[in-house]
Amino acid sequence: MNIEMIEAAARRLEGHAHRTPMLSSPALDAIAGRRVLIKAECLQHTGSFKFRGGWSAVSALPEKVRSNGVIAFSSGNHAQGVANAARAYGIPAVIVMPSDAPNAKIDGTRALGAEVVLYDRASEDRDAIGAEIAADRGLTLIKPFDEPLVIAGQGTCGLEIAQQAAELGVTEAEVLVCCGGGGFASGIALALEAKAPAMRVRPVEPVGFDDVARSLISGKRERNAVTSGGLCDAIISPCPGEITFPILHRLCGPGVLVTDDQALEAMGLAFRHLRVVAEPGGAVALAAALFKPEAVQGDAVICTISGGNVDPAVFARALETL
Amino acid sequence: MNIEMIEAAARRLEGHAHRTPMLSSPALDAIAGRRVLIKAECLQHTGSFKFRGGWSAVSALPEKVRSNGVIAFSSGNHAQGVANAARAYGIPAVIVMPSDAPNAKIDGTRALGAEVVLYDRASEDRDAIGAEIAADRGLTLIKPFDEPLVIAGQGTCGLEIAQQAAELGVTEAEVLVCCGGGGFASGIALALEAKAPAMRVRPVEPVGFDDVARSLISGKRERNAVTSGGLCDAIISPCPGEITFPILHRLCGPGVLVTDDQALEAMGLAFRHLRVVAEPGGAVALAAALFKPEAVQGDAVICTISGGNVDPAVFARALETL
Repeated sequence: MNIEMIEAAARRLEGHAHRTPMLSSPALDAIAGRRVLIKAECLQHTGSFKFRGGWSAVSALPEKVRSNGVIAFSSGNHAQGVANAARAYGIPAVIVMPSDAPNAKIDGTRALGAEVVLYDRASEDRDAIGAEIAADRGLTLIKPFDEPLVIAGQGTCGLEIAQQAAELGVTEAEVLVCCGGGGFASGIALALEAKAPAMRVRPVEPVGFDDVARSLISGKRERNAVTSGGLCDAIISPCPGEITFPILHRLCGPGVLVTDDQALEAMGLAFRHLRVVAEPGGAVALAAALFKPEAVQGDAVICTISGGNVDPAVFARALETL
Repeated sequence: MNIEMIEAAARRLEGHAHRTPMLSSPALDAIAGRRVLIKAECLQHTGSFKFRGGWSAVSALPEKVRSNGVIAFSSGNHAQGVANAARAYGIPAVIVMPSDAPNAKIDGTRALGAEVVLYDRASEDRDAIGAEIAADRGLTLIKPFDEPLVIAGQGTCGLEIAQQAAELGVTEAEVLVCCGGGGFASGIALALEAKAPAMRVRPVEPVGFDDVARSLISGKRERNAVTSGGLCDAIISPCPGEITFPILHRLCGPGVLVTDDQALEAMGLAFRHLRVVAEPGGAVALAAALFKPEAVQGDAVICTISGGNVDPAVFARALETL
């Protein structure tokens, strides 16, 4: 993995991905006690940064391989990113999703023309289901984070962060990034290493699913005891990736943890002060910026809102925090 | 009023206003039956396009006049636009607001450091209250729409629409604009006349508050029978302005009307498919694009989401439409 791969991904994404805005609000600055710049990836096509990785990977496949179609495992955001890219290229996409994924994500994936195969997390083997379908139809698996082309795609967000923050006079800051398997955090970290070396990525996770934070402390890939429950479905994964972890270990940390209630409260404040829709997993970095100010250093902090695909009932809970 | 005034406003706004994104979603295209490009001014600073007009007017005042401070009448969005500009210039701002304005707007205006003076719409004379305060303190009145500097500021959004639509391959389209007193619609229309002459502004209003639509038919400034009630507080005004109406009459129309329920439904769809927060008055143009397709011509339509300052309880009603 290197910066050239991220820049190549940026060229493939040009004219397709949004350069999402860097938002701010005096009210949020006041809560955090420092300037807060918010990279709003919830405004990306398909509602999350996963559009970048999906497009990066599908667009890089050799045409002969790509034309057979692609398959992905995802609780929803990666699903929509891959489905969207597949639709744009006119190729089939099969997405294997847990049956308890948010309806907004299942519906969103189907609306993008993908074939959704649901499985039961407790009783069925996702990998076996996927492997059989992929073999039958000659589909290429697009992994959600442990894939260089996907990491390169997510890294394009880091290129934009470096540029947009510099335009706002910020070249030195900690960058709070919502973190599941580490594709987004490692991609952004690689981009910043090259383009904004005085910035450092701080991965943010929900309490109880802190595999990355613990792995950064122990120096080896630690696992979560459980991988379901909680509101932050988008960023819960068993453990950091084989490819992402060495990058995270070299460039990122320490990790920061927030509660589901803090994520909900951050969603409410993003509604009120930024007028954007964040999903719980996409709001953890903003929650850390607002409610864990002691965990961060510097006059300014940057954070991602990584996604905004949330069921109305969950969003209604966030509104109730206001 | 001419394009040079709008371009001068754009120079004053540079580095201060967001170039808000032009959003889209395949799901919304499917509902509308044509391509829909959405200019998301709810993502502007202070949550609406009114930031542009407020900044344009305050920044153009002679320093000696400006330093005494400014005053504005507003149910909320213009209030926040003016208050924000005043804060940036370090000058006092008094905002006279109806006591039944949404709490989100009253609180937002106070949070920007303005002095809020509430009055009762039924029993008190807003203009008399404002005139007395302005005379006492030497404040300059910043009108909400019938002021060339304000219209020029709103027109900067039109410059961006022309440019962003062209980048997306759209140079010919009807442009649905949320319309109250007509500052936004007339400013955009003047910008498009110069920069995208194959586009035409179609003002959109709530049913029951259709002063602009009726004025465009009769050719003279018609009044609304009532100016309160309904959800779309942001865009309800007594009648088109003396300055805005001739521009609207020359360049815009016919008007399009939508119901409050359609505005709420559009807010729900903007939540789901664009991940942005629209207020009812800010959602009427999207509602027209989605639910009045027969009122529009062409393969593509452009619409504004003009603001996103909405109380949680009203937004919860929009979520219930999903």
